[in-house]
Amino acid sequence: MIKITLPDGTVKEYSKGSTPMEIAKSISEGLARNVISAKYKDTIVETVTPLNEDGSLTLYTWNDDEGKKAFWHSSSHIVAQALEELFPGAKLTIGPAIENGFYYDVDFGEHSVSEKDFPAIEKRALEIARGKHDFKMHPVTKADALERYRSQGNEFKVELIENLEDGSITFCDHDTFTDLCRGGHIPNTGIVKAIKILNVAGAYWRGDENNKQLTRVYGISFPKQKELTEYLQLLEEAKKRDHRKLGRELELFTFSQKVGQGLPLWLPKGAALRERLEQFLKKAQKKAGYEMVVTPHIGQKELYVTSGHYEKYGADSFQPIHTPKEDEEFLLKPMNCPHHCEIYNARPFSYRELPKRYAEFGTVYRYEQSGELHGLTRVRGFTQDDAHIFCTHDQLDAEFKNVIDLSLYVLGSLGFDNFKAQVSVRDLDTPEKYIGSVENWEKAEHAIINAAKAKGLDFVIESGEAAFYGPKLDFMVKDALGRNWQLGTIQVDYNLPERFDLTYKGSDNELHRPVMIHRAPFGSMERFIALLLEHTGGNFPLWLTPEQAIVLPVSEKHEKYAEKVLKSLENHEIRALIDNRNETVGKKIREAEMNKTPFMLIVGESEEEHNTVAIRRHGGEDLGSIGIQDFVDLVAKEINSTLKSFKN
Amino acid sequence: MIKITLPDGTVKEYSKGSTPMEIAKSISEGLARNVISAKYKDTIVETVTPLNEDGSLTLYTWNDDEGKKAFWHSSSHIVAQALEELFPGAKLTIGPAIENGFYYDVDFGEHSVSEKDFPAIEKRALEIARGKHDFKMHPVTKADALERYRSQGNEFKVELIENLEDGSITFCDHDTFTDLCRGGHIPNTGIVKAIKILNVAGAYWRGDENNKQLTRVYGISFPKQKELTEYLQLLEEAKKRDHRKLGRELELFTFSQKVGQGLPLWLPKGAALRERLEQFLKKAQKKAGYEMVVTPHIGQKELYVTSGHYEKYGADSFQPIHTPKEDEEFLLKPMNCPHHCEIYNARPFSYRELPKRYAEFGTVYRYEQSGELHGLTRVRGFTQDDAHIFCTHDQLDAEFKNVIDLSLYVLGSLGFDNFKAQVSVRDLDTPEKYIGSVENWEKAEHAIINAAKAKGLDFVIESGEAAFYGPKLDFMVKDALGRNWQLGTIQVDYNLPERFDLTYKGSDNELHRPVMIHRAPFGSMERFIALLLEHTGGNFPLWLTPEQAIVLPVSEKHEKYAEKVLKSLENHEIRALIDNRNETVGKKIREAEMNKTPFMLIVGESEEEHNTVAIRRHGGEDLGSIGIQDFVDLVAKEINSTLKSFKN
Repeated sequence: MIKITLPDGTVKEYSKGSTPMEIAKSISEGLARNVISAKYKDTIVETVTPLNEDGSLTLYTWNDDEGKKAFWHSSSHIVAQALEELFPGAKLTIGPAIENGFYYDVDFGEHSVSEKDFPAIEKRALEIARGKHDFKMHPVTKADALERYRSQGNEFKVELIENLEDGSITFCDHDTFTDLCRGGHIPNTGIVKAIKILNVAGAYWRGDENNKQLTRVYGISFPKQKELTEYLQLLEEAKKRDHRKLGRELELFTFSQKVGQGLPLWLPKGAALRERLEQFLKKAQKKAGYEMVVTPHIGQKELYVTSGHYEKYGADSFQPIHTPKEDEEFLLKPMNCPHHCEIYNARPFSYRELPKRYAEFGTVYRYEQSGELHGLTRVRGFTQDDAHIFCTHDQLDAEFKNVIDLSLYVLGSLGFDNFKAQVSVRDLDTPEKYIGSVENWEKAEHAIINAAKAKGLDFVIESGEAAFYGPKLDFMVKDALGRNWQLGTIQVDYNLPERFDLTYKGSDNELHRPVMIHRAPFGSMERFIALLLEHTGGNFPLWLTPEQAIVLPVSEKHEKYAEKVLKSLENHEIRALIDNRNETVGKKIREAEMNKTPFMLIVGESEEEHNTVAIRRHGGEDLGSIGIQDFVDLVAKEINSTLKSFKN
Repeated sequence: MIKITLPDGTVKEYSKGSTPMEIAKSISEGLARNVISAKYKDTIVETVTPLNEDGSLTLYTWNDDEGKKAFWHSSSHIVAQALEELFPGAKLTIGPAIENGFYYDVDFGEHSVSEKDFPAIEKRALEIARGKHDFKMHPVTKADALERYRSQGNEFKVELIENLEDGSITFCDHDTFTDLCRGGHIPNTGIVKAIKILNVAGAYWRGDENNKQLTRVYGISFPKQKELTEYLQLLEEAKKRDHRKLGRELELFTFSQKVGQGLPLWLPKGAALRERLEQFLKKAQKKAGYEMVVTPHIGQKELYVTSGHYEKYGADSFQPIHTPKEDEEFLLKPMNCPHHCEIYNARPFSYRELPKRYAEFGTVYRYEQSGELHGLTRVRGFTQDDAHIFCTHDQLDAEFKNVIDLSLYVLGSLGFDNFKAQVSVRDLDTPEKYIGSVENWEKAEHAIINAAKAKGLDFVIESGEAAFYGPKLDFMVKDALGRNWQLGTIQVDYNLPERFDLTYKGSDNELHRPVMIHRAPFGSMERFIALLLEHTGGNFPLWLTPEQAIVLPVSEKHEKYAEKVLKSLENHEIRALIDNRNETVGKKIREAEMNKTPFMLIVGESEEEHNTVAIRRHGGEDLGSIGIQDFVDLVAKEINSTLKSFKN
């Protein structure tokens, strides 16, 4: 008999050689029907692997990340079989599960595979799946493994096997198909009910551009057809909401090859939107006792040697800027904290003057490889809504709570209602990865968890996710498409105050070390606006949106009245435009819809006569004709319903 | 007889060999009394130089820059004589006139000269001056000249003479003193009535740090004792108003050795002041039809190759930033125009959509040698209140006038009432220095002069002062100390539109080239704030100043009432503080005076009883006790008297 410890801590006895599936059955038939993967003693195993020793066991279903991983990994075997059959001579290389689905990199030789081949691949893969073939792992000697792939002329698998140790090599069979594989499969192919090939792309063998270019076939699969349909609808919706597409259509930002990749240029409407977001946060921050500062976008290398960033990131960053006549080296600033430390150091502080809260919309530059760049979410230059709080140890708890309040205010005002918090702490097994004393780390982690609890946040603690200089709390926001985004970091730092020798004079007249909190509710303006675009589909909250209303005269005759309406709106600080082109109202409405303008104010004979405007909401709702002041009130009411004032 | 052409164009005949002084006498005795220097056929001559050919002649008095130059150059001879007499063995090197006074670089050998020696030097120099010795130029052979200085062991003069051509060498004598000299003196030493030695500093021979270090003796002199007294008072006042000193005292900005020289860090009060200036201009610009954009602080080298800046300034600028993995080169942006051109290029424009006016508070970086850096007026990173207007040829005149209106609004709102304009045009003799066609240059110069005339500006035209890419108009502002500053550039540019291939579709459906205007009413935020600090002595206009009022309770008993007053002020958006430290009112007032707080609101028994505040203005004026609302009205009235709204 062996002792199996389940995740809830209970220990059960089973006969030696029992499989995870058998153990699942012993718990409940329902569980057994859903189990598709298992972890035994911290290693992923097959559901049919015989267990021969005492150990912990976790059973996974489709609802677990590990379950999905096994499902998609197994699906890649099925698709690989279909590819081998449909494209004779195709050489398989590697085929892992990814965040959404899986891929297989294939050398198709003389064949070229494109979208028109997808239906045939899907059809054959689904036939294989329906055969309910078991996935069967078995060991193979290195010599046999090499022999198999050498005889097929597959130099890629041969290269993989050559790097493996004899005795550790396994193959996995299902139906007529065999593949080199470390394991982690669902019980049989029949669990896969829906398969979709998503696209193909070029990919170099082992990611090295000096190697042969292969074809990467991306796919996804589901245990129910309905789930695939929903996923494809989501993909379609995500494509529509792609911030790069919306940013172009709404004329918010652009990129220029000459200026450089990953360096957004903000067009007037986008710059104005940024400014509104900045003013919104500045106002709240002023109430919360922050003071704005302004610092340069470069600093001497020495500054980052002091902060420790140069040693850690220097080699992978934008390289130093040299000066023509003197022996000086500057770096583009990758963060604002060292500059703010130097501002703190500009004069001595007494404990009575703390906390000092220095805020800056600081633009920072970080090198990313061009292949990693993506719209506004992965850029080389971005503006952080950064602030650094310098406080005493006694003030840390209160300050952390205040920052959480501010972050919640920001999320709420922008329509993000669905979020969790993640507290990132040290990995206790790798203390060498972190700068600073164990005592200080413990204090900081305690302060964060304490504040998260006090503010009633729904939070998880993630070990090993802390930055090298301190633990942190991130908000994980779920957007309208159900995707998770990390947003708004709050980070305790006991390290930089040491490195910059920051001090304050305590009530005991001695010098003490302040604690530092880094925080950024938006994170980066660029990434935040991208997220907001995809979350709202371009329909920004009314207080933020570029134009709140557009006045549409039905004919030239009513232009003068339209101008009068516009003037009224402007006097009430409603952002409005007029469309007095010589076009039909229908065309004007269609364009205003495209521009996501929240309110269209149509004015004709009747409106002019009664001094009203006919209101059409974005999306088509007809609010009828109302007086101008009534419309102004309507706008004010809607704004006030989302945009509260921070702490009055 | 020779024909002499005077500056007003009149031509008079004089006998050959007449001197400038004789010609001055022939015009008027008064003029002759004041003439101290002359220019004959574009060369500076002595007032006693015989003129032997036809030519133009300009006579200078103390009121001309050239007159001051001759005066100070001559004074350096007088001081040099005094130094030779007082410090036997001292070796003279060079001693030119400078912007304010003159200096002489001397190798004092065993002597060391310091402030305590100044009275003796001044005394002897003045004695020499009173001797009314004529300055007498005479030619000398190279051999004789070398012989004189070799015998004195003066290797510096020997080196100078060795580089001169025989036949072109002259000495100048006065009293017992002789010096190697090219000329340009006043008639005699007696015209110098007041001499002051200002300071001494180290200076390398010929500015090369590998050479011997000499002592530079700075001095200044005047034709009247009263003028010296006034000048010294001005120096004293300038020292008090030094923006570096005031910036530190008012906690506006700081510098950090670690961040780097010439890279200001804006402290909270300074950052808030900047923000107020920015919002002030943004508001006016919005009314004037500008749109804000935001662009990154770097651009690919390619961008500046396209703009032509790289070829022109690349070698003397911050050097390119390399990336670790890819072969890319970026430059810190030294100006915003190339980025704005790329924004313009992001989509096609029709003539109906022009002008486009893109504005940005864009921070730029320009390398300056560390020795050239000075507070906020000469920095390595600064923020321009930049904008670029893209318009048709037909719109250029109107746009230029609008920009002048905006600039005049900015100057007026900030208390700069004393200014002239300078129109900088090409030097017609060096066309190779300028990029772009002659036709376009003519058009642009005409547009500027036309607008300056139309707006009634007091302006001068300066030949050869234009930038390589276009002519411009600068405002030259006289500050409270009578010093001139260049402020607020408006520049026409026909060149960048060519280089960036900017186009718009005209009414003829063809593509045309737009014209570009660069403009910046403040110029640079850093330099502007420095100037404002020195102009106002830190007493900013009330709308702009950091704290408008400070509430001073006379004792702890009145703290609560003081808090109530503060709350009232805040509700009326008056920036106010409270000083409720346990200190005497006298001390609180002294500190508020130091901080240049415009209004002190003292509250005690009587004020609390009558719900009033006792107002003391910065500087000491007592406005008596008035109601809080009356004070609010007073502030509003004062603000409205300087800060008008732009074009309503």
